[in-house]
Amino acid sequence: MKERKISEAIIRRLPRYLRHVTMLALRNEERTSSGALAAQLDLNASQVRQDFNCFGGFGQQGYGYNVKVLRHELARIMGMLSWYKMVIVGAGNIGTALANYEGFDLARVEVCAIFDHKPELVGKTINNKPIFHVDQLGDYIRENKIDIGVLANRRTSAQEVTDIMVEAGIRGIWNFVPLDIVAPVPVENIHMLESMMVLIYKIHQNQLDEDEEAEEKENEED
Amino acid sequence: MKERKISEAIIRRLPRYLRHVTMLALRNEERTSSGALAAQLDLNASQVRQDFNCFGGFGQQGYGYNVKVLRHELARIMGMLSWYKMVIVGAGNIGTALANYEGFDLARVEVCAIFDHKPELVGKTINNKPIFHVDQLGDYIRENKIDIGVLANRRTSAQEVTDIMVEAGIRGIWNFVPLDIVAPVPVENIHMLESMMVLIYKIHQNQLDEDEEAEEKENEED
Repeated sequence: MKERKISEAIIRRLPRYLRHVTMLALRNEERTSSGALAAQLDLNASQVRQDFNCFGGFGQQGYGYNVKVLRHELARIMGMLSWYKMVIVGAGNIGTALANYEGFDLARVEVCAIFDHKPELVGKTINNKPIFHVDQLGDYIRENKIDIGVLANRRTSAQEVTDIMVEAGIRGIWNFVPLDIVAPVPVENIHMLESMMVLIYKIHQNQLDEDEEAEEKENEED
Repeated sequence: MKERKISEAIIRRLPRYLRHVTMLALRNEERTSSGALAAQLDLNASQVRQDFNCFGGFGQQGYGYNVKVLRHELARIMGMLSWYKMVIVGAGNIGTALANYEGFDLARVEVCAIFDHKPELVGKTINNKPIFHVDQLGDYIRENKIDIGVLANRRTSAQEVTDIMVEAGIRGIWNFVPLDIVAPVPVENIHMLESMMVLIYKIHQNQLDEDEEAEEKENEED
């Protein structure tokens, strides 16, 4: 059965379900329920049931879910039963951190190579992964059937690199560059500075609230 | 005037507006319009106007926006006219990348110090920022009036560190740990692995679509 027309909100909850169910499996818990999942993930139980029903449901009414089955089904739906090959473009701070990151196994992603435009980096390795010149990017993607390209390079060349990757057959792009790139394949953005700005906005709003309360209190005291 | 009850969706568009308007300012463009902004940001013009109207609007009907004024107003609304002090907990890959990151000036954020539990890292520096032992975290936040704490440490201690930061008066938390932490202050999550999993889900769906098309074509040929 194909899963169709799943909303973006549900798609974004899937990894959280999987993360939590994986934790339950590691704790050797055998069963869970929509209520228990909802409580842990700050959702409500009917939302959890509705989400799972989009995929045909994974449990029997009133009996909850078998943790192992649920984990496997979530991984299957999310396409995580096969491995994906990834290249990182940009060997700066972010690219280096990603090349060193040990958690990609959990998503069945293998970092194959890193690309940079700086000649002095070419031939070196990060975490045993080779650094090649960005001129070789297209050929490497074609020859090694790379699935995912990470943009961790300069803002000015992000769209150009995207076009090269798309032309070489990349299937998805993980973008760390603060730019809205255009591509005919799925793009996931990690816009760190925007996330930071949202946090600052909320801190600032709290400050305005506090200032207002202080002012009201002062007025009362007058 | 206070800006109240602004939806999360609008809040998340604010940094994108600011990013684009900053680019226009750097190009010395003097004026822009809701239509031009919408086209660049993949929104529609009436949405842009509605968003800006939440804050009282920044332009005259039919005349568009003055780029400098718009940029200043967005920065003011987002609380970015003052500076924020930040500490990073965890001197691993992510913590190191963040300590080396040069873009925080744009959000008026200053990285003050890094904290780790490993004795061998204490006393060292990353990008000229000192590394202290995590036992000193609470006192440091209190003494230096730190605004933002970054969680880039081990999953197992993330909630504990959060509680210490909150007790010491932190105003917001930027969380890179794959865990839903609980705090009475604003929390922004960068869940990298979840973003990766969403990307994989979308790649997988495309694959299913292609497989189905191929099957249909095969059936037609039969």
